Amino acid sequence: MFERIGLIAKQGAVEIRDTLSYLVQYLQDRKRHLIIDECCAEILGRDDLETIAAVDMGQHCDLAIAVGGDGTMLKAAHKLSQQQVPLLGINLGRLGFLADIPADAISEHLDVILNGDYDEDVRCLIQATVHRQGKVIHECEAINDIIIQKWNTARLIEFDTHIDGTLVNCQRSDGLIIATPTGSTAYALSAGGPILHPRLDAMLLVPIAPHNLSNRPIVVDGQAEIEISVVTQEADQARLTADGDSQLELAPGDRLLIKKKDKAIHLIHPANYEHFRLLRTKLHWGRELC
Amino acid sequence: MFERIGLIAKQGAVEIRDTLSYLVQYLQDRKRHLIIDECCAEILGRDDLETIAAVDMGQHCDLAIAVGGDGTMLKAAHKLSQQQVPLLGINLGRLGFLADIPADAISEHLDVILNGDYDEDVRCLIQATVHRQGKVIHECEAINDIIIQKWNTARLIEFDTHIDGTLVNCQRSDGLIIATPTGSTAYALSAGGPILHPRLDAMLLVPIAPHNLSNRPIVVDGQAEIEISVVTQEADQARLTADGDSQLELAPGDRLLIKKKDKAIHLIHPANYEHFRLLRTKLHWGRELC
Amino acid sequence: MFERIGLIAKQGAVEIRDTLSYLVQYLQDRKRHLIIDECCAEILGRDDLETIAAVDMGQHCDLAIAVGGDGTMLKAAHKLSQQQVPLLGINLGRLGFLADIPADAISEHLDVILNGDYDEDVRCLIQATVHRQGKVIHECEAINDIIIQKWNTARLIEFDTHIDGTLVNCQRSDGLIIATPTGSTAYALSAGGPILHPRLDAMLLVPIAPHNLSNRPIVVDGQAEIEISVVTQEADQARLTADGDSQLELAPGDRLLIKKKDKAIHLIHPANYEHFRLLRTKLHWGRELC
Amino acid sequence: MFERIGLIAKQGAVEIRDTLSYLVQYLQDRKRHLIIDECCAEILGRDDLETIAAVDMGQHCDLAIAVGGDGTMLKAAHKLSQQQVPLLGINLGRLGFLADIPADAISEHLDVILNGDYDEDVRCLIQATVHRQGKVIHECEAINDIIIQKWNTARLIEFDTHIDGTLVNCQRSDGLIIATPTGSTAYALSAGGPILHPRLDAMLLVPIAPHNLSNRPIVVDGQAEIEISVVTQEADQARLTADGDSQLELAPGDRLLIKKKDKAIHLIHPANYEHFRLLRTKLHWGRELC
Repeated sequence: MFERIGLIAKQGAVEIRDTLSYLVQYLQDRKRHLIIDECCAEILGRDDLETIAAVDMGQHCDLAIAVGGDGTMLKAAHKLSQQQVPLLGINLGRLGFLADIPADAISEHLDVILNGDYDEDVRCLIQATVHRQGKVIHECEAINDIIIQKWNTARLIEFDTHIDGTLVNCQRSDGLIIATPTGSTAYALSAGGPILHPRLDAMLLVPIAPHNLSNRPIVVDGQAEIEISVVTQEADQARLTADGDSQLELAPGDRLLIKKKDKAIHLIHPANYEHFRLLRTKLHWGRELC
Repeated sequence: MFERIGLIAKQGAVEIRDTLSYLVQYLQDRKRHLIIDECCAEILGRDDLETIAAVDMGQHCDLAIAVGGDGTMLKAAHKLSQQQVPLLGINLGRLGFLADIPADAISEHLDVILNGDYDEDVRCLIQATVHRQGKVIHECEAINDIIIQKWNTARLIEFDTHIDGTLVNCQRSDGLIIATPTGSTAYALSAGGPILHPRLDAMLLVPIAPHNLSNRPIVVDGQAEIEISVVTQEADQARLTADGDSQLELAPGDRLLIKKKDKAIHLIHPANYEHFRLLRTKLHWGRELC
Repeated sequence: MFERIGLIAKQGAVEIRDTLSYLVQYLQDRKRHLIIDECCAEILGRDDLETIAAVDMGQHCDLAIAVGGDGTMLKAAHKLSQQQVPLLGINLGRLGFLADIPADAISEHLDVILNGDYDEDVRCLIQATVHRQGKVIHECEAINDIIIQKWNTARLIEFDTHIDGTLVNCQRSDGLIIATPTGSTAYALSAGGPILHPRLDAMLLVPIAPHNLSNRPIVVDGQAEIEISVVTQEADQARLTADGDSQLELAPGDRLLIKKKDKAIHLIHPANYEHFRLLRTKLHWGRELC
Repeated sequence: MFERIGLIAKQGAVEIRDTLSYLVQYLQDRKRHLIIDECCAEILGRDDLETIAAVDMGQHCDLAIAVGGDGTMLKAAHKLSQQQVPLLGINLGRLGFLADIPADAISEHLDVILNGDYDEDVRCLIQATVHRQGKVIHECEAINDIIIQKWNTARLIEFDTHIDGTLVNCQRSDGLIIATPTGSTAYALSAGGPILHPRLDAMLLVPIAPHNLSNRPIVVDGQAEIEISVVTQEADQARLTADGDSQLELAPGDRLLIKKKDKAIHLIHPANYEHFRLLRTKLHWGRELC
């Protein structure tokens, strides 16, 4: 059962103060050991609550609650990924793909979850390692996607993709998204990719505006090793990003190795969570539109 | 090693007679026990060769060779699917996705394969069971795809899709393709689906011309149970097809259950087979186009 | 100004009786000369109102009002197309692309329109002529689209397309949609076509699930002559439809000539009609989704 | 007839020296008045030929020949656009959409063209005017496309689009392409747009990876005024480009007005030019692929 609970907030998000105050009171009423991160402390303006950095929360909590939206969830998951503490998201805006408990129904859902009635939803991470002239010069990980994309240019970038040592293709495009099943409903979907069920042990490659019209999204299994070699000759026209954050300028000849991590994120949902119900709501798949 | 080899031909395909003759001589020269199916016998006009029905070949051969193209391979694979005898395809026209040994390079490739130097490529099958008013009224299986599609009408059909008991969506469209990874490069690709690596344990759902623009291809894992309920009220506007063959008129209320079979097809390729090399050739992914 | 007004109803649509009754009273109160079609008479169960066939309404009315939805509007427009009487649509279900006056706000909008404050929206028609062995064997016209599509088969059909005598391509696919700008938001949109502004003098060709991945929608100007030659060899695997109605079995060698008609449909909208506002509503282009 | 002919080369393209030399000799043999631009002079290493800047060529020539590829053609067309001198393109690499005379068949095609047997192909231009705080701060024109695109960021940009004063939608995406019919086969095609026949009097709007799945390409007529307002709040995350060249950092509140220019480009093709034949070749629409 969840006894030691950490609260993680979006930095500087004063608009969530009331929700945070409510949560603090709610958890104290239920005799939970409460820990907050520095962003919460600042937003709440309180120094009487146990406060630690979010990256350390995994060592002190058996549940983390992120308050904000999908962006806050992504950031929190990255901070917690070393310790694999379960994570639950409260969204203050629109329903999120990750943060699925609405701020105006907290007690309704938390009562049930704290009572032990919840679904755990394991989401894989992927990692990229960048090799330049024989050396590893960068590493990063992602919950949604790792992307090689054009940057600072209106022209296409060119790169070769290998999977498990086999050439897939050489491609000129705006970039290539390598997404987890979780990321298949994020940017990859906008770029024309399919939806992967979170349970699927797979990675997704989606070209962005490819020059060759027969380039299509490709789904490979979770054990695959994806290698992308930068062919583009101009400096800093190709950029590596992970979960929406710029990571590294790529140079001609750089090789990216991308594979699934052993670690995973553990999302907590109210019991009877249905991923497709979430998709129906987010993607407007109601009967009246069908 | 392959000692007892069966030849399967496209029915009535007199244009492959020379290739068949060559193969008979080639295999006899190499002291293989040769068995031919009735179509071969008819095309060759010979009654001096051991002839059995293709469906029985699995009990008498340790390798079957289909001569024709992808269509012939599909038919042969269906006939052999009970006994799981390995299957190899010789194509007389364009390079096929399944039949990948060109008729003008038979000895080059077969020498190597008969020498034991080959790759085995396991391809899953899926099956559909149709339930009407509580009874199973039809069963079929597919290597590429099982499709519910509009038939005899210019109007959309309507159906609900559940996966593992969860509603995915209700949909009005021209139909829904449920494809294996093998089938992801067949009709599903034309309808806008992604490419699934054959090794992936997954099934693919691709809507055909869906009315709701946010309906997208969905990839689920190989253990998923897909259920499609026919909502369309008019008789025979929805039809079930499997691997391109019409199977059954569907009626309102019919429920299709689709899942992976335990059985699989074992394709034999020359050693160092690379699926992506085949894709590059078939989909024109060369550098000059990239 | 509109003095002689005809009412056209969806056949047998008893659910619109109240709306029809309201309209009859509304128009009589405003001293309009009222004429109803036979469907209205039957639904209303009245024989005291001047009743003529919808196809003759153009000779007796200066405005026709169709009550139902987009399907009713399409049928009414076909019946009226010889006389080009302006047409206005009242929808009882969801907002339509053509029928844009909601049944629960009739007086609000009709007051303004009958007062002379309306927008007239001219929509072109296209026509198809089918030539077989040198003879014209069929003619039809469409407001949305003329389609050559596969029929009674799970296989692709094959055909050649010429524009102004120039070969565009040979194509194997599920079919080809030739749409007006009006039809660009109907079936063509589901098949992946672009949206054409109604004012554009153009026709749209959208392939349905084409085998060749580089086949794309094509937009040609309104003076273009489109010719489609049926290559498919099997009888009745290709079918001609117009605005969703099956027109003709096509045979190998049949040639379809498609071009814009001189005639047009005149839709009446409340003043300040904005086509893009309608699209925003129908396609959910709101800011919260953007 | 073409008597005064200008040669325009790709800057620094020493690999085209032989082709240029051949052309100089070819035109001198045929008694044409020959003028070359500075790039030609440099590549040829000759100062004995009449040399003027490409931008001035329109005043001295009645035909310009660009040697290189589509990129060289685009640049030449921009330089010549004030004087509207006819332009012909010789490509040294792959067949171009604009440069359609292969370098190894120059005399074959030029003999015919200089003989007066050619097709003239008028291609429209579009222009963008950027308004900031009530002032025009930038103007540019394009033969292919004007694009507002994300820049220096992995995040989406947000903007509103109006056509003729009517709101089309608010959009979050990687950007929006406004293309001429000529540009419909360039970047817009990679981003999922349709092909517009060059004769069509229209402009094309193609969203790049839009967040809302129902955003689709839109075709409007050539008289339309397109206005895009930048909503994105961060500086320099939205960039204006024209024909692949970066033009301007866009700021929140900037308004782009885009419309067709009065001027046009006049392309010269060998007689019996067929645009669809070019498309068939470039897009691999051959029967064997159909």
